[in-house]
Amino acid sequence: MSPSPAPLEGVAVPDAPTSAPDARPDLRVAILGCGTVGTQVVRLLTEQARDLGARIGRGLRVTGVLVRDVEAPRDPSLPRELLTTDAAALVADADLVVELLGGTTTARDLVLASLRAGASVVTANKALLATAGPELYAAADAAGVDLLFEAAVAGAVPVVRGVRESLAGDRVERVLGIVNGTTNYILDEMTTRGLDFDVALAQAQELGYAEADPTADVEGHDAAAKAAILASLAFHTRVALGDVACEGITAVTADDIAAAREAGGVVKLLAVAERVSSGDQGAEAVSVRVNPVILPAAHPLAGVGGAYNAVVVETEAAGRLMFYGQGAGGAPTASAVLGDVVAALRHRAHGGRAPAESAHAALPLATPADVVARLQVRLRVDDRPGVLAHVAQAVAEHGVSIESVHQRVAGDGEAVLAVVTHEADEAALHRTVEALRTTEGVRETVSAYRVERA
Amino acid sequence: MSPSPAPLEGVAVPDAPTSAPDARPDLRVAILGCGTVGTQVVRLLTEQARDLGARIGRGLRVTGVLVRDVEAPRDPSLPRELLTTDAAALVADADLVVELLGGTTTARDLVLASLRAGASVVTANKALLATAGPELYAAADAAGVDLLFEAAVAGAVPVVRGVRESLAGDRVERVLGIVNGTTNYILDEMTTRGLDFDVALAQAQELGYAEADPTADVEGHDAAAKAAILASLAFHTRVALGDVACEGITAVTADDIAAAREAGGVVKLLAVAERVSSGDQGAEAVSVRVNPVILPAAHPLAGVGGAYNAVVVETEAAGRLMFYGQGAGGAPTASAVLGDVVAALRHRAHGGRAPAESAHAALPLATPADVVARLQVRLRVDDRPGVLAHVAQAVAEHGVSIESVHQRVAGDGEAVLAVVTHEADEAALHRTVEALRTTEGVRETVSAYRVERA
Repeated sequence: MSPSPAPLEGVAVPDAPTSAPDARPDLRVAILGCGTVGTQVVRLLTEQARDLGARIGRGLRVTGVLVRDVEAPRDPSLPRELLTTDAAALVADADLVVELLGGTTTARDLVLASLRAGASVVTANKALLATAGPELYAAADAAGVDLLFEAAVAGAVPVVRGVRESLAGDRVERVLGIVNGTTNYILDEMTTRGLDFDVALAQAQELGYAEADPTADVEGHDAAAKAAILASLAFHTRVALGDVACEGITAVTADDIAAAREAGGVVKLLAVAERVSSGDQGAEAVSVRVNPVILPAAHPLAGVGGAYNAVVVETEAAGRLMFYGQGAGGAPTASAVLGDVVAALRHRAHGGRAPAESAHAALPLATPADVVARLQVRLRVDDRPGVLAHVAQAVAEHGVSIESVHQRVAGDGEAVLAVVTHEADEAALHRTVEALRTTEGVRETVSAYRVERA
Repeated sequence: MSPSPAPLEGVAVPDAPTSAPDARPDLRVAILGCGTVGTQVVRLLTEQARDLGARIGRGLRVTGVLVRDVEAPRDPSLPRELLTTDAAALVADADLVVELLGGTTTARDLVLASLRAGASVVTANKALLATAGPELYAAADAAGVDLLFEAAVAGAVPVVRGVRESLAGDRVERVLGIVNGTTNYILDEMTTRGLDFDVALAQAQELGYAEADPTADVEGHDAAAKAAILASLAFHTRVALGDVACEGITAVTADDIAAAREAGGVVKLLAVAERVSSGDQGAEAVSVRVNPVILPAAHPLAGVGGAYNAVVVETEAAGRLMFYGQGAGGAPTASAVLGDVVAALRHRAHGGRAPAESAHAALPLATPADVVARLQVRLRVDDRPGVLAHVAQAVAEHGVSIESVHQRVAGDGEAVLAVVTHEADEAALHRTVEALRTTEGVRETVSAYRVERA
């Protein structure tokens, strides 16, 4: 086995083509916002202008960067002459507007103004898309321009294009993803170092992985916006932020995580969108949720650590796919933005358009009775004969069957029961958990987590 | 923690758009080849015609399926009236031709004929692309049509579109992938069950995972074609099959695998394409190779088992991305084909084109002196004082330094030395391995593997 094996036999190829210079004026790119991502986008657009021009087939230039205060201190690499506070002028004179402001008010107004002025828009703004997506799509459609947003979900991970384009000929059954790096980091620290939530959160804030106000991350709202976007694309159905059943990680305890580990699993905050059967007629519906779940160690998402993101897509024909990479940060997010910039400018240069909104399936939202899950319920119970029978009875009465029970004596006449159910519908599981609260011998319902299969 | 958390506050969305019927005639799709993949493509195109039409914005129909023998027995779901042996007629009357014949002679002729007749082409034919890619691109360009080939690399895994489009604004540094399921299955069986290569191959053949003539898989040629395609896309440079340094797995022994495991690693057949510095001026070059390497257990590709494929792409801005999924099989490959079918037909319906060949960087091929690697060399040596000194001396004389040495006494006056080097250039490593063959006290060079870092 030699370290430099011989090349294979090949065939001669003609000379590489030399791209003919395009005499048309450069395409104009306006950047709205100049934070971590904006700075990287400007840097990469400037450094790689020649290569990008070759890929687009036409030159491009940054016409300006919208900031709140031109005088504020910022990265010295940023050309000062590009900075402006005149949003209206910037937007009115662009082939492409890159929106990196965040928020849903000014950003919405400027994105709509850009589209109406005939510019394509690339945005990383998940909240905007998850609340005003159809309105933006309609404006893009009316103007015949592109609306692209790879960076809005999972940073550099190209799952938006994957679902929107690569899987356009397949039938997606389920999408599940770790799409929020902050909560994944916190859960990781809780898992590997046994920290409590508050301690892990404080540490994440100190390191800059969590915001001073961590609500959007730890309550799951950020992940819910991404879940809505992925669900819309995967199921060709409008799904808005308000359609997402959402639960964050603030109630996850070190004890819950230790119990999951005992059962061979890890706790992860998952965004899940799935196609389910609804009612007796076998009609279809869409269920979208964000919540902490227990993943068995063999699940491909179980090993996704730290600030990484990963999305598993399960389809009829392709089976299980996974997309993995950095979910946040200036440069990774800028990479996703620039992929969209090249796509939008290619359309500008040569015609064609990115896929418009695809909502033809228009599936209804699932009800809890449509959605099937397994649950791990942990209970503090009296350590005396007959209690397990009461618990088993309470579960059975709701049509739910038990897959496994693990009992651990806690002392002081108390035991902790971990009951894992077989698949049952969410409504029945919900009633079961409620019933267990008042079952004879049960002192407290400690926690209830969905359990995924590997 | 409740199993059915409350939906978030959301905003109302306007009614979903109803797609206006398009009065234009259906787009015509011709299928060349009706093996496992072709059968699935026809099935999915037929079953999902309405949904696909909605995504494309215009109806489509399969005009015919090219077969060698209309009377041959085949899947009863396949509409007999579509089967034809008249390739010329099929190709002359299509908006899109899907080439699933394999091979590089008839397939090349028919693809060229299709493109010249003005049809876009979707193909899964890696060998064709890796040997005649530039010729096909030129024909597509001349006719103003698309040439798409997601299914040619890693089956359902959307890495072609990922590199070609999503990363178009980034700078790829390295691509490394497990892109051949047959060899991955064989190495997996050798690893988990301690089988010898011949036994594992025979078993793979029995189960239908390996062909009767397994040469293309086990010698690495199939992976080399995919490496050439990925390298071309990643580095905007023409790379043909003949440019790929290629070594298969036929010389991998159960003993090699056991030794890798002792060092905490696994042996995987990797396709690797990387950008390297060439010469003193810091010019760039491209190195492309296929060979068995030792991966540490923590590497994201180390856990990719069985017939799965995965490709890691390392870029300047995005960092490390991974794409994972089923690399072969009728339905997964058909999923990739159908994604391309939708893209090509959208262009047909609404204008625009897929990216043409991007070869603007035109980097030269690297020489062994440009490429840096670490090597694990195993040697059978005399078990006597001084031999390690001779070995260390021989390695040092070639400017290579040693990272670790592991010695195991084998009995009969013999020991086995496993030497892992630090990074050194391939030319120096090659000379080192040659010198070790004749170093005093060395009886035999057992194996030499590249070792990747996690």
